[in-house]
Parts: sequence; structure tokens; C-alpha cells
Amino acid sequence: MGDEFSRIARYLAPLAGPEGLGLTDDAALFTPPAGQQLVFTTDQMLEGVHFIPGDPPSLIARKLLRRNLSDLAAMGATPLGYLLTTALPSGTDESWLAAFANGLAQDQTEFGIKLFGGDSSSSLSHISLSATLIGYVTLGGALRRNGAKAGDDIWVTGTIGDAALGLLARYGKLQDYSGFLANRSLLPMPRMGLKLADIAHAAIDISDGLVQDLGHICEASHLAGHLHAMLVPTSPEAAMFGDAMLETRLTGGDDYELLLAVPPDKSEALRLACGDLPVTKIGKFTNGQAGVTTLDQHGQEIKFLKSGWQHF
Amino acid sequence: MGDEFSRIARYLAPLAGPEGLGLTDDAALFTPPAGQQLVFTTDQMLEGVHFIPGDPPSLIARKLLRRNLSDLAAMGATPLGYLLTTALPSGTDESWLAAFANGLAQDQTEFGIKLFGGDSSSSLSHISLSATLIGYVTLGGALRRNGAKAGDDIWVTGTIGDAALGLLARYGKLQDYSGFLANRSLLPMPRMGLKLADIAHAAIDISDGLVQDLGHICEASHLAGHLHAMLVPTSPEAAMFGDAMLETRLTGGDDYELLLAVPPDKSEALRLACGDLPVTKIGKFTNGQAGVTTLDQHGQEIKFLKSGWQHF
Repeated sequence: MGDEFSRIARYLAPLAGPEGLGLTDDAALFTPPAGQQLVFTTDQMLEGVHFIPGDPPSLIARKLLRRNLSDLAAMGATPLGYLLTTALPSGTDESWLAAFANGLAQDQTEFGIKLFGGDSSSSLSHISLSATLIGYVTLGGALRRNGAKAGDDIWVTGTIGDAALGLLARYGKLQDYSGFLANRSLLPMPRMGLKLADIAHAAIDISDGLVQDLGHICEASHLAGHLHAMLVPTSPEAAMFGDAMLETRLTGGDDYELLLAVPPDKSEALRLACGDLPVTKIGKFTNGQAGVTTLDQHGQEIKFLKSGWQHF
Repeated sequence: MGDEFSRIARYLAPLAGPEGLGLTDDAALFTPPAGQQLVFTTDQMLEGVHFIPGDPPSLIARKLLRRNLSDLAAMGATPLGYLLTTALPSGTDESWLAAFANGLAQDQTEFGIKLFGGDSSSSLSHISLSATLIGYVTLGGALRRNGAKAGDDIWVTGTIGDAALGLLARYGKLQDYSGFLANRSLLPMPRMGLKLADIAHAAIDISDGLVQDLGHICEASHLAGHLHAMLVPTSPEAAMFGDAMLETRLTGGDDYELLLAVPPDKSEALRLACGDLPVTKIGKFTNGQAGVTTLDQHGQEIKFLKSGWQHF
């Protein structure tokens, strides 16, 4: 938290919790909740990589927080606060900063978090942002990727593929009359606060793409995952594009829905825990070589050219 | 911690503590030490802003950690671990990654810290790095900027101005026969582990420049700071350049020494606490308008054109 924070700090200081010491000290001071484990995650948003130049700064701010919040949601954690780093081209004007800070403020309220501190610098060219989120879980209560068991069903919240189609729509590559798909790409909704610790054996948030993220659970849990493509929940807006967009829907990233391994006798408990949020059974874990097999309506394997977002 | 972490994770996974869950989960899981407060700080290193393109990757890694460690030192905190974000141009080769990871490993050993997690992405052009450090202090034991009292002396560890001259040397703007000055710029030494909680009223690390960082204590503590330029400790290598470099030495950044407010009756305790590390009295805090007055050997005020690094 150097003094280079000062310009942006005028906008950010009102967002700081007491842990942030007014953003005027070298570091933040935080008293951990007694008897809990802390959960830390960090994610960045880079102009031209994770967002499109000219995207509304308030939405960039909110997506930065939400991508990190979604990682906490996947572990079953309750968020507390965050540290923020910003690197902005020196010409960045005050209205950008004001809108960016406003987006942070909105989501701080929505998700009950506070700014703990940060670092700000000028950048030579593009905007680069990162946030470290801090949350907590009860001791031993964290959901992991490695807990899936053979016989567990594969479940997913919400609908899958909207954000990948929304990104195409934002590049003018497909029509999105209602703006629903673009909105799912610009402002994902992390699935916070579901009480899944005694229901799910494993969880992950879908940031890299359904097939790839399912693969992460399979690898960590040493299981085969059988994914039924026709069962994957699809929004009406995404369904409009039919099977032509199947690969994009199943391998595209940025949905931030939760993918869960749930034993069959917990199906009803899962539905209850999810309340109004739709949750859909899309496949099964079995013993076998770790990896994902995607099946069509005839039980034939579908091969995809790519299995998700790869930043490298 | 998306899958984009995978390439660099091959180099980073061996650096992870148990909190990092093998760098294969969505977030890190950390059990805080009982009865302590946690200290969080975050700082970035951007190519072309905080380091020179082509700088050795191991030194970039170590300086990234050390800049953050120094913020913990200023609060009197003991470091535990860190989260790391990297954004590297897609052509970055394996040898760069290997050397970067090696630098992290060296300083993990030197400072007793572990990798908790991170995020990695490709960048469009320059390298950008950030780290969030996590440490702890005993409850209420953190040193702050706002605790200085009228009558406290101003003390500083080590020597001041080496890093700023070292940066000039690295740009070929002055001679640095021994390489001492460049080394002070490339590989600062954070002043960890000094037991100052019962000695100093306030502390800050000198990252922005002596005059500017003293100004931060003055503002936070609502005091006037009187700095005697001739008392500021100078290495023989820096002293060679005489008064021509006085402004650079006193306003240049990146020294990562500690600046302290210490009541006169604690001078001896301070020297003892610092052990082999030189510590020098360079001025005094008094009541008066918050700000720094720099005085020459005749007690005349010296005005500087700039008062430190400003990234904005």
C-alpha cells in the first residue's frame, strides 16, 4: 500500500473496513474469526485477456470480485474482505476511477465484504487488476475437488454456456436480442451461501469450462466422469442456437456455476439446499481412468477439439 | 487459481505449503495462529515500471517478495506465506519460469514463508506480477504510522539513498564500480524480526523515499518532522557522489529501510533491538503543521523539487 495508492485511494478509502486502517498504513490488520479456517483466493482481470477494452468499469470491478467470490463459493466459504491491486495507464480519467469504485461498492454491499487494502500503480499500456479474497469456513468444513466418490452423481447449478455465447455476442459473432447472454458474460452470479458441506463430496466453480472443470474433479478424485451432454441445463437464449453451439456451451468458460459430486441419497437434500436456484443432474462418477467422457443422447462419445479456456 | 496456473504450477507446486492444497483447488485453506492478529499486504512489480526489461527473473521474484515483506516488517509482523499472481507474455520460455521459481524458493527459505496459492495468465505485452503476503502480530502489537508523539526522535535503519543511485547506475547514468548500489536496488533487504513493539511509537518502511515516507508518519500522527540532512546515514559508495546527489538520496525510493518514531528514553533499547544493524537518529517530531522540514548543517531549510516516487 504505497503512496501511489493516493489518487485511487480517494475513491477507495470510503470502501475500506476497519481492517484497512483508512488505507494509510503499510498493511491491513485483521482479527480472524475464532475457531474458523480462513480461505484465500486470488484472481486477475487483464484488459484484452479477461475483459474487452472499453467494457464498463463498474462491471469490470464487479466481475473481478465475483470471479474470486465464486472460488470461495466452491469451497463453501463465507467471504469477509479483499485486497486489490490496480495498474492503470497514466491517462486514466477520474470518471473511470469513480465508476470502477462504484462497482466495487455495489458488490461489497451485495456480498457483505469490505476492502482491506491494496496497491496501485501506473501501467505502461493495458489495465491490469487483481484481487485477493479472504473468507472463512468452519474447521474441516471446506469443500474440495478431491472428495468425489465412485457412484456420486454429477450436478450443476444454473445454466451452462451462456457466458461463452455472450462473449461471442459481444464480439458481434451471434445475435443476443435480449442481452441476456452478454450480461451473463459481463456480470456472472457467484453461487454463494449454499450449505453443501454435508451434501456434496466435492465441488468446483465452472470458470474454465464445464468439461475442463469436471476434469479437474476427476483428476483430483481419481475417477472417471460420464457427462450426458443432453442433460446439461441450457437457458432458452442459449438453446436457440441448437447443437451448433454445443461444443462452445460445454467447453466455454466464465459461467461461475457450481459443479458438484453428490451421492444419490443426497439428491433431495441438494435440491432443498439450492432453494430457488435450479440444480440439475448431468452425469455420474465411476471408477476408471481419471478423465471426462461426454456422451450424446445415443450414449455415443462426443469428442471436442478443445476442453476449455487455456490462458497459456 | 484457475487451470491457466498449470504451466507455471509445475514450477510453483514444489513451493506450496499444505495451505496451498497442491495448488490444485479453488482456494487456499489456512488455519490462523490462535490469539494473533493477521497482517495482509499486497504489492505489484510491473515490467518497465518496477523493474527493467531483462532483469534477472530470480531477482524480480525475490524483490517482489521483499517489497511485501518490508511492509510486514514495518508493522512488526512475522511473515507466514503468500499468494502470487503472474501475467506473462505467451512467449515466455521455461528458463525464465525456472529462474523465477528458483528466486521464490530462495527467499521462501530465507524468510520462512510458503506459497499458499495464486493465479496465472498470459499477458498481451509486459510481465506483471503481484503478491499478497500474510503475516501475524500479537493482538494490539502492530506498529502503525499514526503513533508518533511530539518529542520522539526520528530514527532510520541502514543507509539511505543507495537504491535510487543504484537505479541510476543500472541506467548507465552514474558509475557503480563495486555493484553495491545496483545490488541495493535489485535485491533490497527487508528489516524483519526487530522487536520494536515496546520501543517505537510509529514505523514505516522507506519505499517511496525518506522525505515522503517521513511525511506519511507526520500526516498520520499530526506532527511536524524535522529532518537533518547531514545526519542521514549514507553508504561510502553513495557518499562518493557528495551533495550533488543529496536530493536523489533523500527523495529516492526503494531502500526498504525502516523509519521509526522513538521516544528519547528508548534510544539505547532501540540500538540493542537492532543488534548489528546500524540505526541512526536523524531528526525530531514536534507539534506543528503536519509535514516535513529538511534542514542543512546551518539549520537552513532545504527545498526539494520532488518528495519521492509517485507512480501516478
